[in-house]
Amino acid sequence: MKSEQTALYKQVHEYMLTRIQTGEWPKDKRLPSVRSLAELLGVHRLTILKAYQLLKEQGHVYAKDKTGYYRKDSDHISNISEEQPAIRSYIHNSHLSDIHREPVTYKFSASVVDPTLLPNRYLSQHAKEIFDKYPHLLGTYANVKGDEELITGMSAYFQKYDRLYIPEESIVITSGAQQGIDIIAKVFVQAHDYVLIESPTYSGAADIFANRGAKLIPVSITAAGFCLEEVEYFMKKYKPKLFYTNPTYQNPTGYTVPVEQRKQLAELAEKYQCIILEDDAFREIYFHKTPPPPIYSYDTGGYIIYLRSFCKYMAPGLRICAMVAHPSLMKWLIKGKALADNGTPLLSQKAFLFYLTSDRVRTHMEKLRIALQIRKEKMEEALRDHSFHWDSPGGGLNLWVRIDETMDKNKLKAMALENSISYVPGQICDPLERDIPYIRLSYSFLNEQDIRKGMHVLTSIYDSLLTDNMHK
Amino acid sequence: MKSEQTALYKQVHEYMLTRIQTGEWPKDKRLPSVRSLAELLGVHRLTILKAYQLLKEQGHVYAKDKTGYYRKDSDHISNISEEQPAIRSYIHNSHLSDIHREPVTYKFSASVVDPTLLPNRYLSQHAKEIFDKYPHLLGTYANVKGDEELITGMSAYFQKYDRLYIPEESIVITSGAQQGIDIIAKVFVQAHDYVLIESPTYSGAADIFANRGAKLIPVSITAAGFCLEEVEYFMKKYKPKLFYTNPTYQNPTGYTVPVEQRKQLAELAEKYQCIILEDDAFREIYFHKTPPPPIYSYDTGGYIIYLRSFCKYMAPGLRICAMVAHPSLMKWLIKGKALADNGTPLLSQKAFLFYLTSDRVRTHMEKLRIALQIRKEKMEEALRDHSFHWDSPGGGLNLWVRIDETMDKNKLKAMALENSISYVPGQICDPLERDIPYIRLSYSFLNEQDIRKGMHVLTSIYDSLLTDNMHK
Repeated sequence: MKSEQTALYKQVHEYMLTRIQTGEWPKDKRLPSVRSLAELLGVHRLTILKAYQLLKEQGHVYAKDKTGYYRKDSDHISNISEEQPAIRSYIHNSHLSDIHREPVTYKFSASVVDPTLLPNRYLSQHAKEIFDKYPHLLGTYANVKGDEELITGMSAYFQKYDRLYIPEESIVITSGAQQGIDIIAKVFVQAHDYVLIESPTYSGAADIFANRGAKLIPVSITAAGFCLEEVEYFMKKYKPKLFYTNPTYQNPTGYTVPVEQRKQLAELAEKYQCIILEDDAFREIYFHKTPPPPIYSYDTGGYIIYLRSFCKYMAPGLRICAMVAHPSLMKWLIKGKALADNGTPLLSQKAFLFYLTSDRVRTHMEKLRIALQIRKEKMEEALRDHSFHWDSPGGGLNLWVRIDETMDKNKLKAMALENSISYVPGQICDPLERDIPYIRLSYSFLNEQDIRKGMHVLTSIYDSLLTDNMHK
Repeated sequence: MKSEQTALYKQVHEYMLTRIQTGEWPKDKRLPSVRSLAELLGVHRLTILKAYQLLKEQGHVYAKDKTGYYRKDSDHISNISEEQPAIRSYIHNSHLSDIHREPVTYKFSASVVDPTLLPNRYLSQHAKEIFDKYPHLLGTYANVKGDEELITGMSAYFQKYDRLYIPEESIVITSGAQQGIDIIAKVFVQAHDYVLIESPTYSGAADIFANRGAKLIPVSITAAGFCLEEVEYFMKKYKPKLFYTNPTYQNPTGYTVPVEQRKQLAELAEKYQCIILEDDAFREIYFHKTPPPPIYSYDTGGYIIYLRSFCKYMAPGLRICAMVAHPSLMKWLIKGKALADNGTPLLSQKAFLFYLTSDRVRTHMEKLRIALQIRKEKMEEALRDHSFHWDSPGGGLNLWVRIDETMDKNKLKAMALENSISYVPGQICDPLERDIPYIRLSYSFLNEQDIRKGMHVLTSIYDSLLTDNMHK
């Protein structure tokens, strides 16, 4: 069992971290003593000490000579910036969109499919036809829930290709998964609610929940999936409103939660009345074998909300996603969608319907998978023989690469940028923004030649910084 | 001066109402006595009594024999519904989207332009061309801020047609005004912040701020605009984060805030560091004369955020809006847009660019204005000779009609629906959801014949209910 392997001090560490993160343990006040915590939790003092030392290493606390441990200032989830003098914003500072704005040649930060891999001429040809088919298209508002024809088409698609029976009343169309997450947060999460979130995770999701004022509780994801005892512990203890997960070719790790855990997660959701938000944006980008069915397919209690985005690989310019939920939640989700934008543009929906039902797009998907796999292998080839560690993903767009602990991360990032290379620093994927020794490299945006060239420069910079370190 | 006309008891009434609405005066607890309030505010007891009586008439408080006044249960801003047993939603109950879902023949509830009034064939013809012009369009993600070409086009448009100099760095493209409001709320409003909002107002905006957990303070709008002393009083007293206003052909009233008030509003915004969110969705739908310049044009301190939506009259199927703000706020707004959907679909943006710069669309606008004016007059004709009161608007899509105080509003609405007629009940436009004796009738969606027919049925129902009342 996985939880037995989880050392006791790590559980204690998690316990402490949650209190730091939620502000229960205030900053610059002396934290509970080793002795008192040992008594409280019924563990040995050395276990507490070890957990404190880990917190200290991770930069969450500092020790003040003999008076004990204190919470660091920087660690608290605070989304108030002081940069605008007169107007206070509630938006987080570090953000993926900052990285994407860097104009670089080797954009390993872009977790999107290279547009040249898509059947652009075919897509355009068919997009034109919709104007003849729907002469009032541009003058017509979409309805809030989504175009009925598209919803019927999606329901049929899920049945045909995923053997998922999803009735039409369970589907709302959103403008990408990002908007879906935002709507769900708006409907079900408010200030001071607890939210479970994978660690590492997609920062765009973490930012949304933080902006709602939620308290984020990180749940570790590994190649083996979750520690379900940990998940249950958090659900029982904190009664979180929801658990955000991306269980299939997870962003950033590429991990896939195994099928037996999926069933149990659905049960936990029902047992603890915790919504599971299943973000399934990479399902169709698999390499050797198809992925396990979504957690949603095991839902019995109506606690799973399923986001199936097609943005990543079908027609990114249209941004179409299906938000799927039990009819009892639909009423609220439709209202949330109305608040967000009153409905996804009709033009995008009608155009997308063509591709969803097109055999040509199925053929394209097969080619795309092969092309992405080749690019992935090219990137892995470049990483080999350097001090990197990663698990080769079974699908998706990214490699989650562990770098040397001693590496100066700021220097690496700065030198990469100087050489026109961007990637996503691990810190951005950490829900608590801890400075973890990882980088996310996407192999989907650049062609093989550019991957080879860019990775050659990046690994050279990395090696040189590592050598500098050793000589210090 | 307007404020001198505002009777003292009305100011006291406003004072009390704010306390009720914000929960400062809790429900089912005895409210401050007439005597104590008179002392506190330094006014005569009769003034307090008069204000209490007004509150009672409006259904905010009830009097309990001799023990005093109590707050009514129903009045508090609560967005928690009990309908879903296990999962709590944070979404408001009464909502415009519910009304719009009613399938009726005479949709006076739809404040949108009849699609047949738009140059559909022309729009479609040109939309097709963009696929040849941008062959990778459908495979390309938009950037978060918006398409550069479109932003350049908008900046030129504002200069040419509105004599507004708006630099490109001050523009973000959003999917309609609704998304713009949502983003601004996300960036600048959090639970317990005060927000000033027009009364009556666009319910889609009120819902967004309520969902953020804000405390709404209603600011009355009349044919003469605002009472600026009231606005200043609220800004000084409550330090609101923002003031949501739709000052040009306001939805639902059709009122336009006069030019001298616009200047002063910009000054107040700066003085009290309160953002003014200026929603300007109807600017180009004027009838006899062009509207005054936006409040934004008087901005000196960077406190006005300007939302210029083109959805209502250019190409509703594309949903394009410009969110304009001082560069110092841009950083946050771009991040808010990233959280919302990572960027408006590129296809919509490129298609819209065509229309924005098209002379044909200018000609269309002129025809549209005439067509809408005729429809407005047709509706006013039908309302005449019945006991309705309204101010004829200088532009926009709606009539805000005062109905008889004694009218059974639920009965009127139900009977209208039975006869396949929908309109927006005044209560939905009231930021505090008070059951005010008004209805919003849109003249933009139906042709003249249907307006005549539908209004004939509606006024007949109205008259019959009124006669029933008199005979009781």
